[in-house]
Amino acid sequence: MQYPKPVTNLIDSYMKLPGIGEKTAVRLAFFTIDMDKQDIQEFASSLQAVKTQLHYCSICGNITDIDPCEICSNPHRDASQILVVEQAKDVMAMENMQGYNGLYQVLGGVLSPVKGIGPDDLNIKQLLHRLKQHSQVKEVIVATNATPEGEATAMYLAKLIKPAQIKVTRLAHGLAVGADIEYADQMTLQRAVEGRQQI
Amino acid sequence: MQYPKPVTNLIDSYMKLPGIGEKTAVRLAFFTIDMDKQDIQEFASSLQAVKTQLHYCSICGNITDIDPCEICSNPHRDASQILVVEQAKDVMAMENMQGYNGLYQVLGGVLSPVKGIGPDDLNIKQLLHRLKQHSQVKEVIVATNATPEGEATAMYLAKLIKPAQIKVTRLAHGLAVGADIEYADQMTLQRAVEGRQQI
Repeated sequence: MQYPKPVTNLIDSYMKLPGIGEKTAVRLAFFTIDMDKQDIQEFASSLQAVKTQLHYCSICGNITDIDPCEICSNPHRDASQILVVEQAKDVMAMENMQGYNGLYQVLGGVLSPVKGIGPDDLNIKQLLHRLKQHSQVKEVIVATNATPEGEATAMYLAKLIKPAQIKVTRLAHGLAVGADIEYADQMTLQRAVEGRQQI
Repeated sequence: MQYPKPVTNLIDSYMKLPGIGEKTAVRLAFFTIDMDKQDIQEFASSLQAVKTQLHYCSICGNITDIDPCEICSNPHRDASQILVVEQAKDVMAMENMQGYNGLYQVLGGVLSPVKGIGPDDLNIKQLLHRLKQHSQVKEVIVATNATPEGEATAMYLAKLIKPAQIKVTRLAHGLAVGADIEYADQMTLQRAVEGRQQI
Protein backbone atom coordinates (compact mmCIF):
# COMPACT_ATOMS: atom_id res chain seq x y z
CA MET A 1 0.00 0.00 0.00
CA GLN A 2 1.15 3.44 -0.92
CA TYR A 3 0.54 6.61 1.10
CA PRO A 4 -2.42 8.61 -0.25
CA LYS A 5 -1.36 10.78 -3.20
CA PRO A 6 -1.35 14.14 -1.33
CA VAL A 7 0.96 12.63 1.33
CA THR A 8 3.35 11.21 -1.29
CA ASN A 9 3.52 14.60 -3.02
CA LEU A 10 4.36 16.34 0.24
CA ILE A 11 7.02 13.74 1.12
CA ASP A 12 8.59 14.26 -2.33
CA SER A 13 8.65 18.03 -1.77
CA TYR A 14 10.27 17.73 1.65
CA MET A 15 12.88 15.36 0.21
CA LYS A 16 14.02 18.09 -2.19
CA LEU A 17 15.30 20.07 0.80
CA PRO A 18 18.95 19.59 1.79
CA GLY A 19 19.69 17.12 4.60
CA ILE A 20 16.19 15.66 4.58
CA GLY A 21 15.97 11.98 3.69
CA GLU A 22 12.94 9.77 3.23
CA LYS A 23 12.36 8.94 6.92
CA THR A 24 12.54 12.58 7.99
CA ALA A 25 10.33 13.63 5.08
CA VAL A 26 7.68 11.11 6.15
CA ARG A 27 7.86 12.40 9.73
CA LEU A 28 7.55 16.02 8.56
CA ALA A 29 4.65 15.14 6.25
CA PHE A 30 2.68 13.46 9.03
CA PHE A 31 3.46 16.36 11.33
CA THR A 32 2.16 18.72 8.65
CA ILE A 33 -1.11 16.79 8.40
CA ASP A 34 -1.74 17.56 12.08
CA MET A 35 -0.74 21.24 11.83
CA ASP A 36 -3.18 24.15 12.11
CA LYS A 37 -4.83 25.03 8.82
CA GLN A 38 -3.66 28.62 9.23
CA ASP A 39 -0.03 27.65 9.88
CA ILE A 40 -0.04 25.56 6.72
CA GLN A 41 -1.58 28.41 4.75
CA GLU A 42 1.14 30.78 6.02
CA PHE A 43 3.83 28.22 5.19
CA ALA A 44 2.52 27.86 1.63
CA SER A 45 2.23 31.63 1.15
CA SER A 46 5.73 32.31 2.49
CA LEU A 47 7.13 29.70 0.11
CA GLN A 48 5.50 31.41 -2.84
CA ALA A 49 6.48 34.86 -1.54
CA VAL A 50 10.22 34.17 -1.70
CA LYS A 51 9.90 33.75 -5.46
CA THR A 52 7.46 36.57 -6.11
CA GLN A 53 8.67 39.21 -3.64
CA LEU A 54 12.43 38.65 -3.43
CA HIS A 55 15.01 39.63 -6.03
CA TYR A 56 18.66 40.61 -6.20
CA CYS A 57 19.68 44.20 -5.37
CA SER A 58 20.65 45.89 -8.64
CA ILE A 59 23.69 47.44 -6.93
CA CYS A 60 25.22 44.84 -4.62
CA GLY A 61 23.51 41.56 -5.60
CA ASN A 62 22.13 40.97 -2.10
CA ILE A 63 18.70 39.33 -1.69
CA THR A 64 16.08 41.97 -0.95
CA ASP A 65 12.42 42.87 -1.20
CA ILE A 66 13.16 46.52 -2.09
CA ASP A 67 15.59 47.84 -4.73
CA PRO A 68 18.22 49.12 -4.05
CA CYS A 69 18.45 47.04 -0.88
CA GLU A 70 18.24 48.42 2.65
CA ILE A 71 22.02 48.67 2.93
CA CYS A 72 22.75 50.25 -0.47
CA SER A 73 19.99 52.83 0.03
CA ASN A 74 21.15 53.80 3.55
CA PRO A 75 23.00 57.16 3.39
CA HIS A 76 24.61 56.51 6.79
CA ARG A 77 26.68 53.59 5.55
CA ASP A 78 30.36 54.19 4.80
CA ALA A 79 30.62 54.20 1.00
CA SER A 80 34.44 54.05 1.10
CA GLN A 81 34.45 50.34 1.93
CA ILE A 82 33.02 47.44 -0.02
CA LEU A 83 33.05 43.99 1.56
CA VAL A 84 32.91 41.18 -0.99
CA VAL A 85 31.13 37.96 0.04
CA GLU A 86 30.19 34.74 -1.74
CA GLN A 87 26.54 34.44 -0.72
CA ALA A 88 23.70 36.67 0.46
CA LYS A 89 23.65 34.80 3.79
CA ASP A 90 27.23 35.93 4.40
CA VAL A 91 25.91 39.52 4.36
CA MET A 92 23.47 38.59 7.15
CA ALA A 93 26.29 37.01 9.18
CA MET A 94 28.43 40.16 8.81
CA GLU A 95 25.48 42.40 9.70
CA ASN A 96 24.72 40.36 12.81
CA MET A 97 28.28 41.05 13.97
CA GLN A 98 27.32 44.77 14.03
CA GLY A 99 30.95 45.88 13.62
CA TYR A 100 30.93 46.82 9.94
CA ASN A 101 29.28 49.91 8.49
CA GLY A 102 30.39 49.83 4.86
CA LEU A 103 28.71 48.46 1.75
CA TYR A 104 28.67 44.94 0.28
CA GLN A 105 29.06 43.10 -2.97
CA VAL A 106 27.62 39.60 -3.26
CA LEU A 107 29.51 37.53 -5.84
CA GLY A 108 26.93 34.75 -6.04
CA GLY A 109 29.59 32.03 -5.74
CA VAL A 110 33.32 31.53 -6.28
CA LEU A 111 35.49 30.79 -9.27
CA SER A 112 35.58 27.04 -9.81
CA PRO A 113 37.06 25.57 -13.00
CA VAL A 114 35.89 22.11 -11.88
CA LYS A 115 32.24 23.23 -11.74
CA GLY A 116 32.70 25.42 -14.80
CA ILE A 117 32.15 28.69 -12.90
CA GLY A 118 34.18 31.49 -14.49
CA PRO A 119 34.42 35.25 -13.84
CA ASP A 120 31.41 35.93 -16.08
CA ASP A 121 29.17 33.74 -13.89
CA LEU A 122 29.86 35.92 -10.82
CA ASN A 123 28.99 39.56 -10.12
CA ILE A 124 32.60 40.65 -10.76
CA LYS A 125 31.80 43.01 -13.65
CA GLN A 126 29.20 44.67 -11.41
CA LEU A 127 31.87 45.21 -8.72
CA LEU A 128 34.42 46.68 -11.15
CA HIS A 129 31.73 48.95 -12.57
CA ARG A 130 30.91 50.22 -9.06
CA LEU A 131 34.60 50.90 -8.37
CA LYS A 132 34.90 52.88 -11.60
CA GLN A 133 31.72 54.88 -11.01
CA HIS A 134 32.27 55.71 -7.34
CA SER A 135 35.71 57.13 -6.77
CA GLN A 136 35.08 57.36 -3.01
CA VAL A 137 35.76 53.61 -2.58
CA LYS A 138 39.08 53.32 -0.71
CA GLU A 139 39.08 49.67 0.33
CA VAL A 140 37.72 46.38 -0.92
CA ILE A 141 37.61 43.72 1.81
CA VAL A 142 37.49 40.24 0.28
CA ALA A 143 35.57 37.93 2.59
CA THR A 144 35.34 34.77 0.51
CA ASN A 145 35.63 31.52 2.47
CA ALA A 146 39.01 29.95 3.20
CA THR A 147 38.53 27.18 0.62
CA PRO A 148 40.88 26.75 -2.35
CA GLU A 149 38.18 28.29 -4.60
CA GLY A 150 37.60 31.15 -2.17
CA GLU A 151 41.32 31.90 -1.99
CA ALA A 152 41.68 31.77 -5.77
CA THR A 153 38.74 34.15 -6.18
CA ALA A 154 40.29 36.55 -3.65
CA MET A 155 43.61 36.51 -5.54
CA TYR A 156 41.82 37.06 -8.84
CA LEU A 157 39.91 40.07 -7.48
CA ALA A 158 43.04 41.56 -5.91
CA LYS A 159 44.84 41.36 -9.26
CA LEU A 160 41.96 43.15 -11.02
CA ILE A 161 41.41 45.87 -8.42
CA LYS A 162 44.93 46.79 -7.25
CA PRO A 163 45.88 48.68 -10.46
CA ALA A 164 43.09 51.17 -9.62
CA GLN A 165 45.00 52.20 -6.46
CA ILE A 166 42.30 50.77 -4.21
CA LYS A 167 43.40 48.89 -1.09
CA VAL A 168 42.40 45.21 -1.21
CA THR A 169 42.29 43.34 2.10
CA ARG A 170 41.33 39.86 3.21
CA LEU A 171 39.64 38.77 6.45
CA ALA A 172 42.10 37.44 9.05
CA HIS A 173 42.29 33.68 9.44
CA GLY A 174 43.40 32.08 12.67
CA LEU A 175 42.08 30.37 15.75
CA ALA A 176 38.38 30.81 16.43
CA VAL A 177 37.67 32.69 19.66
CA GLY A 178 37.29 30.09 22.40
CA ALA A 179 38.92 27.33 20.34
CA ASP A 180 41.59 25.05 21.82
CA ILE A 181 44.98 24.98 20.11
CA GLU A 182 45.01 21.26 20.82
CA TYR A 183 42.06 20.63 18.49
CA ALA A 184 42.85 23.20 15.78
CA ASP A 185 43.61 21.82 12.32
CA GLN A 186 47.04 22.31 10.77
CA MET A 187 45.99 24.92 8.19
CA THR A 188 44.29 27.06 10.82
CA LEU A 189 47.30 26.87 13.14
CA GLN A 190 49.62 27.78 10.29
CA ARG A 191 47.48 30.83 9.46
CA ALA A 192 47.38 31.80 13.12
CA VAL A 193 51.19 31.73 13.34
CA GLU A 194 51.64 33.61 10.05
CA GLY A 195 49.17 36.27 11.11
CA ARG A 196 50.54 36.72 14.64
CA GLN A 197 50.38 40.27 15.99
CA GLN A 198 52.42 42.22 18.50
CA ILE A 199 50.81 42.77 21.91
CA MET B 1 19.80 44.24 10.12
CA GLN B 2 16.94 41.82 9.75
CA TYR B 3 16.39 39.43 6.88
CA PRO B 4 13.88 40.75 4.34
CA LYS B 5 10.30 40.09 5.51
CA PRO B 6 9.54 37.21 3.10
CA VAL B 7 12.69 35.41 4.29
CA THR B 8 11.80 35.90 7.98
CA ASN B 9 8.31 34.53 7.33
CA LEU B 10 9.70 31.44 5.66
CA ILE B 11 12.25 30.88 8.45
CA ASP B 12 9.42 31.12 11.00
CA SER B 13 7.38 28.56 9.07
CA TYR B 14 10.29 26.12 8.83
CA MET B 15 10.93 26.51 12.57
CA LYS B 16 7.42 25.22 13.31
CA LEU B 17 8.47 21.81 11.96
CA PRO B 18 9.80 19.26 14.48
CA GLY B 19 13.57 19.00 14.86
CA ILE B 20 14.28 22.17 12.90
CA GLY B 21 15.98 24.95 14.86
CA GLU B 22 16.85 28.46 13.76
CA LYS B 23 20.14 27.65 12.01
CA THR B 24 18.60 24.83 9.98
CA ALA B 25 15.56 26.98 9.17
CA VAL B 26 17.82 29.74 7.82
CA ARG B 27 19.71 27.20 5.72
CA LEU B 28 16.45 25.75 4.36
CA ALA B 29 15.06 29.23 3.64
CA PHE B 30 18.12 30.27 1.63
CA PHE B 31 18.03 26.94 -0.18
CA THR B 32 14.37 27.58 -1.01
CA ILE B 33 15.21 30.99 -2.49
CA ASP B 34 17.44 29.25 -5.03
CA MET B 35 14.93 26.49 -5.84
CA ASP B 36 13.09 26.17 -9.16
CA LYS B 37 9.91 28.23 -9.27
CA GLN B 38 7.97 25.10 -10.24
CA ASP B 39 9.35 23.03 -7.35
CA ILE B 40 8.32 25.77 -4.91
CA GLN B 41 4.87 25.93 -6.47
CA GLU B 42 4.49 22.16 -6.11
CA PHE B 43 5.71 22.33 -2.50
CA ALA B 44 3.15 25.05 -1.67
CA SER B 45 0.32 23.17 -3.40
CA SER B 46 1.14 19.88 -1.70
CA LEU B 47 1.13 21.63 1.68
CA GLN B 48 -2.33 23.00 1.03
CA ALA B 49 -3.52 19.68 -0.41
CA VAL B 50 -2.92 17.74 2.81
CA LYS B 51 -5.51 19.94 4.52
CA THR B 52 -8.02 20.13 1.67
CA GLN B 53 -7.79 16.59 0.24
CA LEU B 54 -7.02 14.41 3.25
CA HIS B 55 -9.43 13.33 5.98
CA TYR B 56 -9.94 10.45 8.37
CA CYS B 57 -11.61 7.26 7.11
CA SER B 58 -15.10 7.14 8.63
CA ILE B 59 -14.64 3.42 9.39
CA CYS B 60 -11.08 2.92 10.68
CA GLY B 61 -9.79 6.47 11.34
CA ASN B 62 -6.86 6.10 8.93
CA ILE B 63 -5.72 9.11 6.90
CA THR B 64 -7.06 8.88 3.36
CA ASP B 65 -8.08 10.85 0.29
CA ILE B 66 -11.08 8.58 -0.40
CA ASP B 67 -13.79 7.45 2.04
CA PRO B 68 -13.93 4.65 3.14
CA CYS B 69 -10.16 4.27 2.78
CA GLU B 70 -8.42 1.95 0.33
CA ILE B 71 -8.12 -0.80 2.97
CA CYS B 72 -11.67 -0.66 4.37
CA SER B 73 -13.16 -0.63 0.88
CA ASN B 74 -11.08 -3.60 -0.32
CA PRO B 75 -13.29 -6.76 -0.40
CA HIS B 76 -10.21 -9.01 -0.48
CA ARG B 77 -9.07 -8.01 3.02
CA ASP B 78 -9.78 -10.43 5.86
CA ALA B 79 -12.63 -8.84 7.84
CA SER B 80 -12.19 -11.27 10.74
CA GLN B 81 -9.13 -9.44 12.07
CA ILE B 82 -8.80 -5.85 13.25
CA LEU B 83 -5.33 -4.54 14.11
CA VAL B 84 -5.44 -1.57 16.48
CA VAL B 85 -2.67 1.05 16.12
CA GLU B 86 -1.97 4.43 17.72
CA GLN B 87 -1.27 6.50 14.61
CA ALA B 88 -2.02 6.46 10.89
CA LYS B 89 1.71 6.08 10.17
CA ASP B 90 1.68 2.78 12.06
CA VAL B 91 -0.80 1.50 9.45
CA MET B 92 1.74 2.37 6.73
CA ALA B 93 4.49 0.52 8.64
CA MET B 94 2.31 -2.60 8.97
CA GLU B 95 1.31 -2.42 5.30
CA ASN B 96 4.93 -2.13 4.21
CA MET B 97 5.58 -5.41 6.05
CA GLN B 98 3.13 -7.04 3.60
CA GLY B 99 2.34 -9.89 5.99
CA TYR B 100 -1.05 -8.73 7.27
CA ASN B 101 -4.26 -8.85 5.28
CA GLY B 102 -6.88 -7.85 7.87
CA LEU B 103 -8.43 -4.49 8.68
CA TYR B 104 -7.23 -1.68 10.93
CA GLN B 105 -8.45 0.69 13.62
CA VAL B 106 -6.47 3.88 14.26
CA LEU B 107 -6.93 5.08 17.85
CA GLY B 108 -5.44 8.54 17.27
CA GLY B 109 -3.26 8.29 20.40
CA VAL B 110 -3.07 6.40 23.69
CA LEU B 111 -4.70 6.81 27.09
CA SER B 112 -2.63 9.28 29.11
CA PRO B 113 -3.99 10.65 32.39
CA VAL B 114 -0.94 12.98 32.56
CA LYS B 115 -1.82 14.62 29.24
CA GLY B 116 -5.54 14.43 30.01
CA ILE B 117 -6.30 11.96 27.22
CA GLY B 118 -9.19 9.68 28.21
CA PRO B 119 -11.13 6.96 26.33
CA ASP B 120 -13.46 9.55 24.79
CA ASP B 121 -10.54 11.31 23.09
CA LEU B 122 -9.61 8.14 21.19
CA ASN B 123 -11.52 6.19 18.52
CA ILE B 124 -12.46 3.49 21.05
CA LYS B 125 -16.24 3.90 20.69
CA GLN B 126 -15.80 3.60 16.93
CA LEU B 127 -13.96 0.29 17.44
CA LEU B 128 -16.59 -1.13 19.83
CA HIS B 129 -19.32 -0.08 17.42
CA ARG B 130 -17.56 -1.94 14.58
CA LEU B 131 -17.24 -5.07 16.74
CA LYS B 132 -20.94 -4.96 17.58
CA GLN B 133 -22.01 -4.35 13.95
CA HIS B 134 -19.77 -6.90 12.28
CA SER B 135 -20.05 -10.27 13.99
CA GLN B 136 -17.39 -11.75 11.63
CA VAL B 137 -14.58 -10.16 13.68
CA LYS B 138 -12.77 -13.01 15.44
CA GLU B 139 -9.58 -11.30 16.64
CA VAL B 140 -8.46 -7.86 17.71
CA ILE B 141 -4.66 -7.46 17.56
CA VAL B 142 -3.56 -4.58 19.78
CA ALA B 143 -0.42 -3.01 18.29
CA THR B 144 0.05 0.00 20.56
CA ASN B 145 3.68 0.86 21.36
CA ALA B 146 5.50 -0.75 24.30
CA THR B 147 5.32 2.43 26.41
CA PRO B 148 3.51 2.54 29.78
CA GLU B 149 0.65 4.41 28.07
CA GLY B 150 0.57 1.96 25.16
CA GLU B 151 0.47 -1.00 27.56
CA ALA B 152 -2.29 0.58 29.66
CA THR B 153 -4.34 1.26 26.54
CA ALA B 154 -3.90 -2.36 25.42
CA MET B 155 -5.08 -3.62 28.84
CA TYR B 156 -8.06 -1.25 28.77
CA LEU B 157 -9.10 -2.44 25.30
CA ALA B 158 -8.70 -6.11 26.26
CA LYS B 159 -10.97 -5.59 29.27
CA LEU B 160 -13.66 -3.98 27.08
CA ILE B 161 -13.52 -6.46 24.22
CA LYS B 162 -13.01 -9.84 25.91
CA PRO B 163 -16.61 -10.10 27.25
CA ALA B 164 -17.79 -10.15 23.61
CA GLN B 165 -15.96 -13.49 23.12
CA ILE B 166 -13.50 -11.93 20.68
CA LYS B 167 -9.86 -12.99 20.92
CA VAL B 168 -7.60 -10.07 21.91
CA THR B 169 -3.89 -10.42 21.13
CA ARG B 170 -0.84 -8.19 21.49
CA LEU B 171 2.21 -7.95 19.21
CA ALA B 172 5.21 -9.94 20.46
CA HIS B 173 7.99 -7.98 22.13
CA GLY B 174 11.53 -9.24 22.19
CA LEU B 175 14.88 -8.77 20.52
CA ALA B 176 14.83 -6.95 17.21
CA VAL B 177 16.00 -9.10 14.31
CA GLY B 178 19.73 -8.55 13.95
CA ALA B 179 20.09 -6.97 17.39
CA ASP B 180 22.90 -7.99 19.75
CA ILE B 181 21.91 -9.40 23.16
CA GLU B 182 24.87 -7.47 24.56
CA TYR B 183 23.29 -4.13 23.70
CA ALA B 184 19.63 -4.95 24.38
CA ASP B 185 17.97 -2.99 27.20
CA GLN B 186 16.74 -4.83 30.31
CA MET B 187 13.02 -4.53 29.52
CA THR B 188 13.48 -5.92 26.01
CA LEU B 189 15.57 -8.83 27.30
CA GLN B 190 13.01 -9.58 29.97
CA ARG B 191 10.22 -9.66 27.36
CA ALA B 192 12.36 -11.86 25.10
CA VAL B 193 12.84 -14.38 27.92
CA GLU B 194 9.17 -14.31 28.93
CA GLY B 195 8.04 -14.80 25.33
CA ARG B 196 10.54 -17.58 24.52
CA GLN B 197 9.28 -20.26 22.14
CA GLN B 198 10.07 -23.91 21.61
CA ILE B 199 12.19 -24.74 18.56
